[in-house]
Amino acid sequence: MQSGPLQEALSATSTAVERVLDPILAIPPGPEARVVEAMRYSVFSGGKRLRPFLVLASAELFDVERAHALRVAAAIECIHCYSLIHDDLPAMDDDDLRRGKPTVHKAFDEATAILAGDALVSLAFEILADDATHSDPFVRLELVRKLAHASGHHGMVGGQMIDLSAERMGLDEAAIHRLQQMKTGALISFSAESGAIMGHAGKQARAALHGYARDLGLAFQIADDLLDVEGSPEEVGKATGKDADAGKATLVGLMGVERARQQAVVLTDQAIAHLSMFDERASLLRAVAHFAINRRT
Amino acid sequence: MQSGPLQEALSATSTAVERVLDPILAIPPGPEARVVEAMRYSVFSGGKRLRPFLVLASAELFDVERAHALRVAAAIECIHCYSLIHDDLPAMDDDDLRRGKPTVHKAFDEATAILAGDALVSLAFEILADDATHSDPFVRLELVRKLAHASGHHGMVGGQMIDLSAERMGLDEAAIHRLQQMKTGALISFSAESGAIMGHAGKQARAALHGYARDLGLAFQIADDLLDVEGSPEEVGKATGKDADAGKATLVGLMGVERARQQAVVLTDQAIAHLSMFDERASLLRAVAHFAINRRT
Repeated sequence: MQSGPLQEALSATSTAVERVLDPILAIPPGPEARVVEAMRYSVFSGGKRLRPFLVLASAELFDVERAHALRVAAAIECIHCYSLIHDDLPAMDDDDLRRGKPTVHKAFDEATAILAGDALVSLAFEILADDATHSDPFVRLELVRKLAHASGHHGMVGGQMIDLSAERMGLDEAAIHRLQQMKTGALISFSAESGAIMGHAGKQARAALHGYARDLGLAFQIADDLLDVEGSPEEVGKATGKDADAGKATLVGLMGVERARQQAVVLTDQAIAHLSMFDERASLLRAVAHFAINRRT
Repeated sequence: MQSGPLQEALSATSTAVERVLDPILAIPPGPEARVVEAMRYSVFSGGKRLRPFLVLASAELFDVERAHALRVAAAIECIHCYSLIHDDLPAMDDDDLRRGKPTVHKAFDEATAILAGDALVSLAFEILADDATHSDPFVRLELVRKLAHASGHHGMVGGQMIDLSAERMGLDEAAIHRLQQMKTGALISFSAESGAIMGHAGKQARAALHGYARDLGLAFQIADDLLDVEGSPEEVGKATGKDADAGKATLVGLMGVERARQQAVVLTDQAIAHLSMFDERASLLRAVAHFAINRRT
């Protein structure tokens, strides 16, 4: 599959999700406007929209209403953007550049960046719990529960905690896998599974999407690490070479570039194999797996 | 009413809420343990437990199961603790002391404090959405939606944004009221209203509790500001005189100590007047209103 239809789908996803978030993030009249401006700065700054794309693509497999899927995609993107804002803070990864633009604490200030991240978390759950997100209350509750779990100390936040401690002590391959499952894998898996939740899909379909997303997430992470080693800041849109400078343990650092690249290919093939029960409607999910390891940004 | 039964009720609330949170915040085996230790440090550090108390006291008015009310109380306390952790950060109010102990970023480090706050938000929503919190899914969803709204950019986070900007520009009385409604009032109102939500109470009862909590919240805030002006760090358990040093606009600053104290009394009477439809089961809610303006910490 060529990148044409995939790029189109990613770009359409981005537009559609922004259309959902635009009125929700209307600028209020008071001095609290500043925090909403910072939220908008983060949410409307481009990005690949991988997670929203996975939501929409998995929702299509189960004939979920697109309007519902778009709200779930928007909620997950709020969580993703909050994690980027907080990870970029001086006390965390201390990054000045994100997607080729100043990070939120650089464009605004640290306090505003912390608050913008905080407000995006609340907003994500407010969106999911709303009637407009799904007609079945149990679906909305499962979405809230699983997103909360994936983003909290058992998932994304726990992973970032391990990542920060990894700068101080070495991790072996198994520990790095676990870190990445938590830090980025949990949210990616939830994104791919959410379509199955909304579509009341059976266990088998859920497990297939979960497995797909797990392998895809790991492949994506290796690709990220490779870009950090091989990419230039101009290409990647953020500082590179940071992992090595920080003494961070990564799979690329442990395995070397060649073996890491091979493992990414294996993971991509595995991810795609999980989709065998789905017909050609899963072709975009297959395409995004190839994209994962061939991207340059 | 004397403070005896109220102090007992507050202390029993504290113990009961901690019993709910203790197993939920079990220390995991991996290096992410650090963030959970920081969460526990914040959540188990005492505090008045005003919000959990309001949840339990309002739940009692409508014969809500205590186990349900305790989970909602625990969720709200997670949100309250997260807001304290983040507000204390160097980039925000830069406080070293909270409840007589080092703040989380002092006891751990800034990155861990940011992550502990973040994880407490996710945890709050995970608790609310769980089956164990209420048998009616629509109640659970309303709790999620309203807590998300009260804690986000329309509520607590928006209020903190205004508060930070107030250090740079003056606010008049109306603007300070709005700030406080958002920064602390929204969560206090939600706490008092949550019992009515869990008990499927009618509009009138909800409105009464909402009004009670609004006035109580404002009285509490004035008492806080008075302690900042008049208290010693030893009594209050945190640095005092900070508002004036930061050039923050407060009602006490605008009105002077005497008028502010009078207004707190008026607000307390108003808060209690809202409870006229409830019988002696609301006596603890009445007592906590008196406590609000007589406390020394």
